[in-house]
Amino acid sequence: MLGTYPQDLGGVDREKLIACIEECFRCAQACTACADACLSEDMVAELRTCIRTNLDCADVCVATGKVLSRHTGYDANLTRAVLTACAAACKACGDECASHAEMHEHCRVCAEACRACEKACTDLLATLG
Amino acid sequence: MLGTYPQDLGGVDREKLIACIEECFRCAQACTACADACLSEDMVAELRTCIRTNLDCADVCVATGKVLSRHTGYDANLTRAVLTACAAACKACGDECASHAEMHEHCRVCAEACRACEKACTDLLATLG
Amino acid sequence: MLGTYPQDLGGVDREKLIACIEECFRCAQACTACADACLSEDMVAELRTCIRTNLDCADVCVATGKVLSRHTGYDANLTRAVLTACAAACKACGDECASHAEMHEHCRVCAEACRACEKACTDLLATLG
Amino acid sequence: MLGTYPQDLGGVDREKLIACIEECFRCAQACTACADACLSEDMVAELRTCIRTNLDCADVCVATGKVLSRHTGYDANLTRAVLTACAAACKACGDECASHAEMHEHCRVCAEACRACEKACTDLLATLG
Repeated sequence: MLGTYPQDLGGVDREKLIACIEECFRCAQACTACADACLSEDMVAELRTCIRTNLDCADVCVATGKVLSRHTGYDANLTRAVLTACAAACKACGDECASHAEMHEHCRVCAEACRACEKACTDLLATLG
Repeated sequence: MLGTYPQDLGGVDREKLIACIEECFRCAQACTACADACLSEDMVAELRTCIRTNLDCADVCVATGKVLSRHTGYDANLTRAVLTACAAACKACGDECASHAEMHEHCRVCAEACRACEKACTDLLATLG
Repeated sequence: MLGTYPQDLGGVDREKLIACIEECFRCAQACTACADACLSEDMVAELRTCIRTNLDCADVCVATGKVLSRHTGYDANLTRAVLTACAAACKACGDECASHAEMHEHCRVCAEACRACEKACTDLLATLG
Repeated sequence: MLGTYPQDLGGVDREKLIACIEECFRCAQACTACADACLSEDMVAELRTCIRTNLDCADVCVATGKVLSRHTGYDANLTRAVLTACAAACKACGDECASHAEMHEHCRVCAEACRACEKACTDLLATLG
C-alpha cells in the first residue's frame, strides 16, 4: 500500500516504516487475543496485570499503526512521541507476557509479537534523527 | 494466535475466523492509508466521499477485528451484528474506491482489501447460522 | 461541534444525532472502566463474560461515535448497519452488567450508560427511515 | 465511574485523572468532527495538514482515554509515555487548528478542545513525578 502514496514520504525509511506498521497491527491483534485467552484461564486472578497490559498495548498499537499509515503533513515530533509510547507499551507487555510464557502458549506468542513491535518502533525511531 | 486459545471456540469455523480477523486488520490499514493518499492528491476535492468512507471502514474494521479476536463469553448475536456492519462498511468503501481505481493505484489496492474483507465477513456470517 | 459543520446534515435529526454521539463516547469510557474494575474484583473469575462484553461494547461504541461524527458523503445504509451493531453491543453489555448491578456499583453505572446508549441508537435509527 | 473502582488508585490525583479522561474523549470527538468538517470545505486542499493532524489526534486521544480508564496493574512509566504522546498530538493539532480558527468555526472549537486536553495531560503528568 505504501508504494501507492502519490507524494514523497519526507525522508522516512520506507522498509522500516512498512515493517513498523505491520508489526503494530499484528501486535494489536495478538494483545487483544492474549487478553481474552488470559481471561479464559482458570488462573485468571493471577493474570490481571497481563490482561491490563495487553489491553493498553493493543490500544496504543492501533493508534500508532494508524498514525504511521499517514504521510500527508508529516510531523516528526508527533511521530517520535507516538513511537516512544508504543515502544514503552510493547516493552511493558512483552515483559509481562514473557513472565507467563512457559505456562501459557498465548503469552509466549504475544511476547514475541510485542518484542518484534518494540524493535520495529525503536528501529524506526533511530532513523528519524 | 488462535491456536493458543485455552478453551473451545464454541463451534465457530476456525479457518474462516482466522481469515476474517486478518482481513479486518489488513483492511483497516489499507483504508487508513488510502484516506491519507486521497488527501494528498491534487484532486482531493473530488475524493471527499472516498476519504470519508475510508475512515468509516477503518474504524469499523478495527472494532470488528478486535471483537472477533475474543472468544470468551461468545455471543453469536453480537458477532452477527458486528459482521453485518463490517460487511456493509467494506461494501460501501469497496464500491467507492473501485470507482477511482483506474485513476488512483491506492484506491485499486484498497478496493481489493475491502472486497476481500467483505467476503471474509459474509463467509463467516454464513457459518454462524 | 455539530453546529459548526459547514454543509447540510442530509436530513438527520440534529438533537438525536448529538445525543447518540455523546452516549457512544460516554458508554465507551464506562465500558472500558467497568472491564478494568471487574478485573480488579476478587471474584474476577465470575465476571469473565462481563469483561468480554464490556470490551466489545467499548470498541463498537468508539467506532460508532466516530462514524456518527462524520457527515460528509453521508450513507444511510452504513449508518443504519453501524447503529444496529452498536445497539446490539449495548443491549448485550447492559443486560450482563445489570445482572451484577446489585453487587458491583461499577456494573450498575455501566449498565445505565449501556441502556442510555442503546436507546440513543434506536432513537436515531427510528428517524432514519 | 472512577468512584466505583474497587481498589486503590495507586496515588494518582483523582480529580486530574477524571479531567484528563473526559478531555481525551471530548478531544477525540472534536478532532473526528473537525477532520470531517474540513473535508467538506470548499478550500479542502488548504486544509490537508489540518485533517491529517485531526485524525492523528483523535486516534491518540482515544487510546489515551482508554489507558487512563484502567487502574489495575498501574504502570507509571507507560502512563507517562502515553500522556506525553497525547500532549504532543494535542499541541500539534491545537496549533494547526488555531491557525484556521478565524476562518473556520469548527477549527476554533477543535483548537479549544485540543488546548484543554493538552493541559489536562500535562497537569496529570506533573502529578506523576
